[in-house]
Amino acid sequence: MEPVDILIENGTILTMDEEGTILEPGFLMVEGDRISRMGGGCPEPVEAKRHLDAKGGLVLPGLINGHTHAAMSLFRGLADDLPLMDWLNHYIFPVERHMDGDFVHTGTLLACAEMILSGTTTFCDMYLFEGDAARAAGQAGMRCILGEVLYDFPSPNYGDLEKGLAYTENLILEWARDPLVSIAVEPHSLFTCSPDLLVRAHELAQRHDVPLILHLSETTTEVNEIIDKYGKKPLEHLRSLGILGPRLIADHCVHLDDEEVDMLAGHGVRVIHNPESNMKLASGVAPVPDMIARGIAVGLGTDGCASNNNLDLFTEMDTAAKLHKVHRMDTTVMDAYTVLRMATIEGARALGLDNLIGSLEAGKKADIIVVDTQRPHLTPMYHPYSHLVYAARGQDVTYSIIDGRVVMENRRILTLDLEEILARARKRSEDVISWIRS
Amino acid sequence: MEPVDILIENGTILTMDEEGTILEPGFLMVEGDRISRMGGGCPEPVEAKRHLDAKGGLVLPGLINGHTHAAMSLFRGLADDLPLMDWLNHYIFPVERHMDGDFVHTGTLLACAEMILSGTTTFCDMYLFEGDAARAAGQAGMRCILGEVLYDFPSPNYGDLEKGLAYTENLILEWARDPLVSIAVEPHSLFTCSPDLLVRAHELAQRHDVPLILHLSETTTEVNEIIDKYGKKPLEHLRSLGILGPRLIADHCVHLDDEEVDMLAGHGVRVIHNPESNMKLASGVAPVPDMIARGIAVGLGTDGCASNNNLDLFTEMDTAAKLHKVHRMDTTVMDAYTVLRMATIEGARALGLDNLIGSLEAGKKADIIVVDTQRPHLTPMYHPYSHLVYAARGQDVTYSIIDGRVVMENRRILTLDLEEILARARKRSEDVISWIRS
Repeated sequence: MEPVDILIENGTILTMDEEGTILEPGFLMVEGDRISRMGGGCPEPVEAKRHLDAKGGLVLPGLINGHTHAAMSLFRGLADDLPLMDWLNHYIFPVERHMDGDFVHTGTLLACAEMILSGTTTFCDMYLFEGDAARAAGQAGMRCILGEVLYDFPSPNYGDLEKGLAYTENLILEWARDPLVSIAVEPHSLFTCSPDLLVRAHELAQRHDVPLILHLSETTTEVNEIIDKYGKKPLEHLRSLGILGPRLIADHCVHLDDEEVDMLAGHGVRVIHNPESNMKLASGVAPVPDMIARGIAVGLGTDGCASNNNLDLFTEMDTAAKLHKVHRMDTTVMDAYTVLRMATIEGARALGLDNLIGSLEAGKKADIIVVDTQRPHLTPMYHPYSHLVYAARGQDVTYSIIDGRVVMENRRILTLDLEEILARARKRSEDVISWIRS
Repeated sequence: MEPVDILIENGTILTMDEEGTILEPGFLMVEGDRISRMGGGCPEPVEAKRHLDAKGGLVLPGLINGHTHAAMSLFRGLADDLPLMDWLNHYIFPVERHMDGDFVHTGTLLACAEMILSGTTTFCDMYLFEGDAARAAGQAGMRCILGEVLYDFPSPNYGDLEKGLAYTENLILEWARDPLVSIAVEPHSLFTCSPDLLVRAHELAQRHDVPLILHLSETTTEVNEIIDKYGKKPLEHLRSLGILGPRLIADHCVHLDDEEVDMLAGHGVRVIHNPESNMKLASGVAPVPDMIARGIAVGLGTDGCASNNNLDLFTEMDTAAKLHKVHRMDTTVMDAYTVLRMATIEGARALGLDNLIGSLEAGKKADIIVVDTQRPHLTPMYHPYSHLVYAARGQDVTYSIIDGRVVMENRRILTLDLEEILARARKRSEDVISWIRS
């Protein structure tokens, strides 16, 4: 018999499958890019090219960051605690005008390093120069969905909209057969995109059968602007354009009334919830418990580093669980298991990747993390879901495997030269400072 | 010239003094238990018994956890996401009935390990068997204020109230000259303590000139109970008993109206804010920006591990900053600097320790931490306060010094046998499970 590629032993396996199966202890085998076999107890003797000892820790699906702007890692902490328009007008817009492909490549590598080190194995990105972001993700060995941001004003990358649609289409074709990177069409939002842009973006997404991703109803200002301009609430506006449907992934969805939540559910729209960003930017609290109750696939995202300011999905889970409890004044909403599902299988469902990832099951892609629990803040262990959501941190992850490849081992990234990335990031931060001053 | 004990070099020193002085780079010398000298740039040549290279990272005062129940580390994750009364009646009360001194000693050692590893150097504790907690803190080398919880019903430690007051008085006398551990008088709350108990506790605190610490207005249920029972709002009830004054440290203070916030300010009462616990238990959002605006000393606490479930003050800062932004719908409230002050100098002020700790200044006690910033989530660095609050985690701390003693170095605790503590914690968790089932 051929040896398997990786054998993981001596851990509690949280499969996150539909039955919530836990194998305690369990084993898991990887062959190629797939999970080939798993079970409870110890495996019968099998040859493995690589043995991985989970040391009594937790083995679970790699976490899924459903919405970010990875390269904004280079803007982390540049300007916080400011009114939104000050932040945009005096910091973000001036620097984005000067941006180039190397900047996005550097920032995305930096973000990938942070995500890999904190147990995220898949991310969904919206930004500029996404060809360079795709190259960075490929180098890091991360799974991702990326899309060039489209809006009514000229982009520092592609110029006018025609070129933006062409740039996106080229990306779709270029990455069509990549095992890790795939491309979506990503108009920024209803308030920055004309109905014509939205319709054309949707047509492009339909033509290539890829997701359509946009920011939706993040702030009350934005919602009121849409109502003033089109005489319709945002969801109704999308429906009138023929865009509301299962192809759509909507980020944020903070300000929706009950009728709009019903519309999301009825049209099979998927949602990414970004609680920390919504808190830090004082956007509001999304009606996530209602969305989940109506069967909407809701994933979890960190948003970009300029509005969070970190990409650690463990603390994002912690915040998600707590925020809704105090908002609803109900300790029972958003329990630990529900929230961990949002960061794994429901996140995969929200991104349309649940046939591949999001749970540990034979035949699925081998995107796996191991959490070390021999630590004072994770000892003793009564309930693993609770520990993962309320006590664990990204830095407790000791192994990350993506598509069958070990990309991080004992806190060391194997796919990237971290020192070089940090040096590049520091250098580009000097440019940021000079751009702001200019 | 005598060599100094410790010389810290090559870091950015955030002093957290009244002027917000930053020494970039700076140096700091420790002699005995005190900071003897500090300044910008490199020091003139000086002999030091120990050189500590901050490697370009951040040097700041050790963080202050203003309110916790340390030994509840042994209940972490035991029962989450339940209605409050289920949690108390079916889990917390049954296990607390069986508790003993070894249990509290074990749980406090475990909590101290977690706190030291996450950059906390001082904590304020309220629990049972606090003599054993004091012993644990002393072994760990942590600074703390502790107090035996007093209430109207018999305690598993001391039995009836008379014995509780005597137990507390003995603790006060026993630890009176300890450089690290000090004792407070700690009646649990207005709804579990009769007016007579409160008055006698206050007298005891006055007689020994120690703080009086209690939970205050944590939930609406509790506030309504006080109004029903005494015909007065909680603050008015305290005032009528002659207890409202600068000796009082009030934990939580979630449900206070404007008039009550004014009363706190007018009477010099100090407050500890516990945002994550208040969220997880769906207690509500404390009016902290109002308290700070009125000059009240507000520190930050994690509360116990059963309602958080971690003791990491870095993420507590992150949550504190974000929660109030979304609650007030204002991005400018609770900026990073304000929140970092709550975890350092304002925390010290709230505990009455600001003459000793909370800032790095020559003559103050040497309670110091070093944060490694050569990490992807802390690179590049535009503003250190922002990084500490919004991006850093307890696990980024590489050195902890308490009272001039290095207690943690490169993630290794020097004062405790961590493996032994983890083994003891696992063993006692088996007792917890049997107590619940009995």
